[in-house]
Amino acid sequence: MTRRTGRRPGNPDTREAILDAARTTFADRGFDSASIRAIAGAAGVDPALVHHYFGSKDQLFLTAMNFPVDPAQLVPTVLAGDRDGAGERLVRTFLGVWDSPAGSAAQALLRSAVSNEWTARLLREFVTTQVLRRVLEQLDVDPAQLPLRGSLVATQMIGLAMMRYVVRLEPVASAAPETLVATVGPTIQRYLTGPLPA
Amino acid sequence: MTRRTGRRPGNPDTREAILDAARTTFADRGFDSASIRAIAGAAGVDPALVHHYFGSKDQLFLTAMNFPVDPAQLVPTVLAGDRDGAGERLVRTFLGVWDSPAGSAAQALLRSAVSNEWTARLLREFVTTQVLRRVLEQLDVDPAQLPLRGSLVATQMIGLAMMRYVVRLEPVASAAPETLVATVGPTIQRYLTGPLPA
Repeated sequence: MTRRTGRRPGNPDTREAILDAARTTFADRGFDSASIRAIAGAAGVDPALVHHYFGSKDQLFLTAMNFPVDPAQLVPTVLAGDRDGAGERLVRTFLGVWDSPAGSAAQALLRSAVSNEWTARLLREFVTTQVLRRVLEQLDVDPAQLPLRGSLVATQMIGLAMMRYVVRLEPVASAAPETLVATVGPTIQRYLTGPLPA
Repeated sequence: MTRRTGRRPGNPDTREAILDAARTTFADRGFDSASIRAIAGAAGVDPALVHHYFGSKDQLFLTAMNFPVDPAQLVPTVLAGDRDGAGERLVRTFLGVWDSPAGSAAQALLRSAVSNEWTARLLREFVTTQVLRRVLEQLDVDPAQLPLRGSLVATQMIGLAMMRYVVRLEPVASAAPETLVATVGPTIQRYLTGPLPA
C-alpha cells in the first residue's frame, strides 16, 4: 500500500507540488530517466525533502499515479512456489488485488490509461519494467524473450481486468476467482515459460 | 462494411432520429429484446422505413454503434479450415481488421466502451451473442460451456487490442501479425476447444 506510512503528511502544498512535478517529469522523461533530483528541481525543493515525503522513486511514482498497491510486495507471492505454478499464482494474486477494496483504484487507473496517453505510457513502462520483468528474471527464461513474454502477459491480464471489472462480461465478471485461475493460469504460464516461435 | 450501401441516404433528420432511437432502445432493452418495431415507435416512423434505411436489425445496430466492419462477414473466414486452426485464424482475422483503415473506428469504439457503460453493455452483448457464439456453435463444443469460452476469448482479444493499439506496449505494438498469430493463437484455440475445468 502506498498511502499510509505513519509519517506525518507534511506541508500539503509542498507535497502536491512534488507530486505535480513528479507526474510531469515522469511523463516527459519516462520512469527510468526521471530522477528524484530532476523532480525536486521542477518542484523547487531539495531532493532530500522528496525522499523524506515519499521514500524511493518507486514509492513516489506509485503515489503520484494513485497506484492501489505496491507491486513489489506482490512479486514475491507470484514467485513463491514451483516454476510451473507461476501462471496460476500470477492470476490469483492479480484477482486478489482487483477483488479487494483496492480494486476501485485499480479500475480508475485502467480507465485513465485508456483515455489518457500520458497515463498509458507511464503505466506500460512501469508495469513491464518494474513488475513483469522482475517476475520473468526469476523464472530463468532467455533474456532476449523477456519483452515479448512480458507484453503477452499484459495483453491477457489487462483484457481479463477489462472484461471482469469494466465491461463486466458474464460469466467472467461473476466467475469464482479459482475458475479464472484454472482457465487463464495456463495461458499466463505459457507466456511466461512456454516455447515461443523463433 | 456498414456505411456505404449505394442507397440514397434519405432524409438526414429521419435517419438520425432512427439512429438515436435505436441507440436508446438497444441500451434500454439489450440487443435481443429491442425490436425494429419498438425502435420505429420511439423514432415516430413506420417500421418499414427503418428497414428501408438500414436493412436488418444487425445492420441498424452496426450503423448506430459505428461498427467498423460487419462481424458476420468475418465469421466464415474464422471457420474456413480445420477446427484446430480456428484460434490462429481468429487472431489473424481480428488483427486484419485492426491493422486496416477500419482500425481507427475500432479503436474509437473500444475507448468508448471503457468510458461509457452503455456502449460497454451493448458491445459485450453483441460481440458475445452475435459473433463469438456463432463461431463456437460451429466448433462442436458443449453448449453449456459456450458463454465461458466466449468470454475467455474476449478477455484475450480485447487485451491484445488494448495493448497493441491503445496503450501501444512494445514489442506487441510493433510485432508482425504472424508473431501474434503464433503466440496468441494457441491461447484462443484452448479457450475455443480445449478442456475447461469442471
